Amino acid sequence: MGTRDRIIQAAEQAIREFGSVGATTRRIAALAGCSEALIYKHFAGKEELLLAVLLEGMPELGAPLTRLRVSGGQGDLGARLTEFAVAAVEFYTRAFSIASGVMADPSLVAGFRAMLAKTDRGPHVPIQALAEILRTEQRDGRLDPGMDAGAAAAMIMGACYHRANLSYFVDLPEETRPWADAVVRTLIRR
Amino acid sequence: MGTRDRIIQAAEQAIREFGSVGATTRRIAALAGCSEALIYKHFAGKEELLLAVLLEGMPELGAPLTRLRVSGGQGDLGARLTEFAVAAVEFYTRAFSIASGVMADPSLVAGFRAMLAKTDRGPHVPIQALAEILRTEQRDGRLDPGMDAGAAAAMIMGACYHRANLSYFVDLPEETRPWADAVVRTLIRR
Repeated sequence: MGTRDRIIQAAEQAIREFGSVGATTRRIAALAGCSEALIYKHFAGKEELLLAVLLEGMPELGAPLTRLRVSGGQGDLGARLTEFAVAAVEFYTRAFSIASGVMADPSLVAGFRAMLAKTDRGPHVPIQALAEILRTEQRDGRLDPGMDAGAAAAMIMGACYHRANLSYFVDLPEETRPWADAVVRTLIRR
Repeated sequence: MGTRDRIIQAAEQAIREFGSVGATTRRIAALAGCSEALIYKHFAGKEELLLAVLLEGMPELGAPLTRLRVSGGQGDLGARLTEFAVAAVEFYTRAFSIASGVMADPSLVAGFRAMLAKTDRGPHVPIQALAEILRTEQRDGRLDPGMDAGAAAAMIMGACYHRANLSYFVDLPEETRPWADAVVRTLIRR
């Protein structure tokens, strides 16, 4: 593992342990076994490091999206979407402790916004990717062609994101899988 | 306005200005025109104050839920749900800058969880309230009775919550109202 990846991994660990406020570059450097100066050689500042943790350290949502895309036509669409929703809840549960740290600091949010505006990445991209997959399912006759794919994707991703955040604050009564199944069946019913 | 309400209002203002990390009791006291000691006379700690800001300082989601409930049978259900969704996006946009401050600090999250567990309040309650309203609409024959009202409520609230959070990080291409309309129409189509 290269130094950059080691720093990203250490940052994620520090955020989980101390919260993003307590995840100082000093602690991250200690966990990565490097100097603070080396962190600043790889990252312009803490927001760039947090962005890297979010975008590079957590590729788990890309994998479920790919699985959903390549499995088109194999098996039941509802079951495939439920699998995806379960993975999305897990992803957002992990992602949220990092993203919330950015949100708690207005100057970090401003830096984060400016960085995202220069790229084609960002937290809205998975919704667009899911919408594109749903459009393919519509074209191939496996999903109601009258459904607004963008709105459907916003609802699936939104419900998963919201659930992940709620689980930080309260114990949810229902297991994720039956919940995800009910969400998907309610959305794609004909 | 009583002292307690003045402190809550000052806390909300401080969080908006400095982020919840920078919203120290010192700054809140200055904004409220009181001493820090008086804050601690009304609130056991910062998490209790943040909880009060979230639950008492921002009643705007209760009002849209009530409007939706009492307007049953008047006009088009889709239009009424779209109105509600627009209000929910606005509420969550305001709420998020405060909630994220709690999330950024693991010890605050633990305190917040413990406090919520002792009450019947919490961020999951509006989903249950919306589900109950949808069940009434189903009983009254205005909504597909085969729809899972809990799952439908999770999708509407989740999509609104997610959109509010996304707007912190990226400029969303679509206005909230047509977006909300597409979400509602996609969900309640027959």
